[in-house]
Amino acid sequence: MQWWRARSKGRQNSFQELRFGSSKIDTDLINRIERATGQKPHHFLRRGIFFSHRDMDQILDAYENKKSFYLYTGRGPSSQAMHVGHLIPFMFTKWLQEVFDVPLVIQLTDDEKYLWKDMTVEKAYEYAKENAKDIIACGFDINKTFIFSDLDYLGTSPGFYKNIVKVQKHVTFNQVKGIFGFTDSDCIGKISFPAIQAAPSFSSSFPQIFNGKENIQCLIPCAIDQDPYFRMTRDVAPRIGQPKPALLHSVFFPALQGAQTKMSASDPNSSIFLTDTPKQIKTKINKHAFSGGRDTIEEHRKYGGNCDVDVSFMYLTFFLEDDDRLEQLKQAYTSGELLTGELKKVLIETMQPLIAAHQERRKQVTDEVVKQFMTPRKLAFEF
Amino acid sequence: MQWWRARSKGRQNSFQELRFGSSKIDTDLINRIERATGQKPHHFLRRGIFFSHRDMDQILDAYENKKSFYLYTGRGPSSQAMHVGHLIPFMFTKWLQEVFDVPLVIQLTDDEKYLWKDMTVEKAYEYAKENAKDIIACGFDINKTFIFSDLDYLGTSPGFYKNIVKVQKHVTFNQVKGIFGFTDSDCIGKISFPAIQAAPSFSSSFPQIFNGKENIQCLIPCAIDQDPYFRMTRDVAPRIGQPKPALLHSVFFPALQGAQTKMSASDPNSSIFLTDTPKQIKTKINKHAFSGGRDTIEEHRKYGGNCDVDVSFMYLTFFLEDDDRLEQLKQAYTSGELLTGELKKVLIETMQPLIAAHQERRKQVTDEVVKQFMTPRKLAFEF
Repeated sequence: MQWWRARSKGRQNSFQELRFGSSKIDTDLINRIERATGQKPHHFLRRGIFFSHRDMDQILDAYENKKSFYLYTGRGPSSQAMHVGHLIPFMFTKWLQEVFDVPLVIQLTDDEKYLWKDMTVEKAYEYAKENAKDIIACGFDINKTFIFSDLDYLGTSPGFYKNIVKVQKHVTFNQVKGIFGFTDSDCIGKISFPAIQAAPSFSSSFPQIFNGKENIQCLIPCAIDQDPYFRMTRDVAPRIGQPKPALLHSVFFPALQGAQTKMSASDPNSSIFLTDTPKQIKTKINKHAFSGGRDTIEEHRKYGGNCDVDVSFMYLTFFLEDDDRLEQLKQAYTSGELLTGELKKVLIETMQPLIAAHQERRKQVTDEVVKQFMTPRKLAFEF
Repeated sequence: MQWWRARSKGRQNSFQELRFGSSKIDTDLINRIERATGQKPHHFLRRGIFFSHRDMDQILDAYENKKSFYLYTGRGPSSQAMHVGHLIPFMFTKWLQEVFDVPLVIQLTDDEKYLWKDMTVEKAYEYAKENAKDIIACGFDINKTFIFSDLDYLGTSPGFYKNIVKVQKHVTFNQVKGIFGFTDSDCIGKISFPAIQAAPSFSSSFPQIFNGKENIQCLIPCAIDQDPYFRMTRDVAPRIGQPKPALLHSVFFPALQGAQTKMSASDPNSSIFLTDTPKQIKTKINKHAFSGGRDTIEEHRKYGGNCDVDVSFMYLTFFLEDDDRLEQLKQAYTSGELLTGELKKVLIETMQPLIAAHQERRKQVTDEVVKQFMTPRKLAFEF
């Protein structure tokens, strides 16, 4: 399992599908966010990429009454190379941090990766620190952001362990079996892991970070496949005297081969990686991006392309910020005026500078900077 | 469950019964211990109270070649009052520490008590600190002993958590179900707890305590009911590159009502508590200690008492150090010369000063002393 990764799940992206009582992020909510922050809503919101939520209205109620919150997101560091899909929650979280001006904790579940993969503890921790560089390169505020490896931080915060054990007391094997599909042959580490992903939802897990302040409201931006963890967390929260975390869910990020194929970090052609060269980006998109175009130019001109299944167009909805341009491309492609090759060219020209800029920023992230982000310390924020 | 407590198990003490491939502590081994330490073996060894072991011969092989080891034992702090049965592993561990001159770590599984009982995390931690006072009163060397609460220490030692997660990766739910009888309705905290009791068997859980030295051999003196934890630990050890801990097992400690009844910390009459007054001790023994004597004085004189079921006599085997006196009492009781009331009087006169002395020593244990024992620090020992 790949906890924090937005991924395709063997079916089409459904921007509307809501799960187990989560709510749609509708125009009203987006307008409220705009009013509360005084900022134009992020295109991930405008385009339904973050499409579902739990209790975001309560976050805004409180925020309008000068009561702030903290952000929590994370990543399971399975390998050194991250792909662009991994960036989605971080790009959005960075925007949330900026417009709401709030602190942020980022969990690197290296313990989880050790448990699930054929990997040593040392390797998992090494990946965590490597991945932290890509995360930091997204532009988080060093004074308001704490990044932690479980393997490291769990052993430096009694508050964190206390919350873990509290969650573990209130969740049965039957429950995690139902939620995560564990079986009797799974190791006890996997079985108890959900509590470790749950605990950072409670500010008392971070006494040093939040200056001992408890019961601060938490908001979790994450890919929709993480929702089961936090549904579980929200069930437990009132029983251990903690506020339920609110959630913002993003859609699955599609593989280049199409939303119906499973993305795999071990297949370099399944997505664009943050380490790809301009040439690799070009080749991958041209060779592998599933096309919603017609079989021949003639048919394409006549019937037009299908944006709903065209991966190049999907990727552009994620990464092309200009709304007008995107709408233009959509119309031209749908009408048959724009050919697949031309659409791919737009995507290539969007991704190449984006990845190059990321690589440039990542180069600036020294081990010293990583160490600063990962040092438990009071964040520059008063609740 | 009461992890660390020696207890009766609804059947008679069996000094000989060996489990799952453990070995009897025979005269040869006792003689070897005497030769290695140059000290008379503890009466718990001489009388078969510590009756079974795993790999104690290897400990002695290494010790004779100037390779030392560390001791690990523990307790689940379920309530403030400990009874005399709880002292058995600690009295013996203190002796081992003295005669072998080795460091010692003592785990207080307050997390376990929180998980199993209707108790807050704060209360469990409070009990841990209270229990630590009774443990310290047994006379451990402050320079060579580290006592830790899981709730506290797990959050201050990444090395400890790393070993926990390593054990958790190598034990399945099926295994803990088989060993501990967990069911699908048990909380995931209980299910993963065995790894937390396992981890202190590895010196890398204590980088500060052992100055970063890994793979130090561990010897665990404990009551026989703890063996399942350490059988599991020994199975996992080679798979995570750690030495198997060696073990010394004590028999169950009988309740006053007899070895066949279950001892309960909530029943003040089931044993002698460390807080009992001389009068309470006298009353309890006279009223509740199961007698192996006959129904009438006449019958007793004629047929004699049965030391095998007489709880007063059993308690004397634990607490009366004088071998000759014990043998005298046994003969006199068995022959009918000594009456139950007289045997009880001997026990009362043994326990009253023992408990009073314990209470006196416990009074000297200030919060400051507890804090010193519980502070992670390098112990005064070089491996």
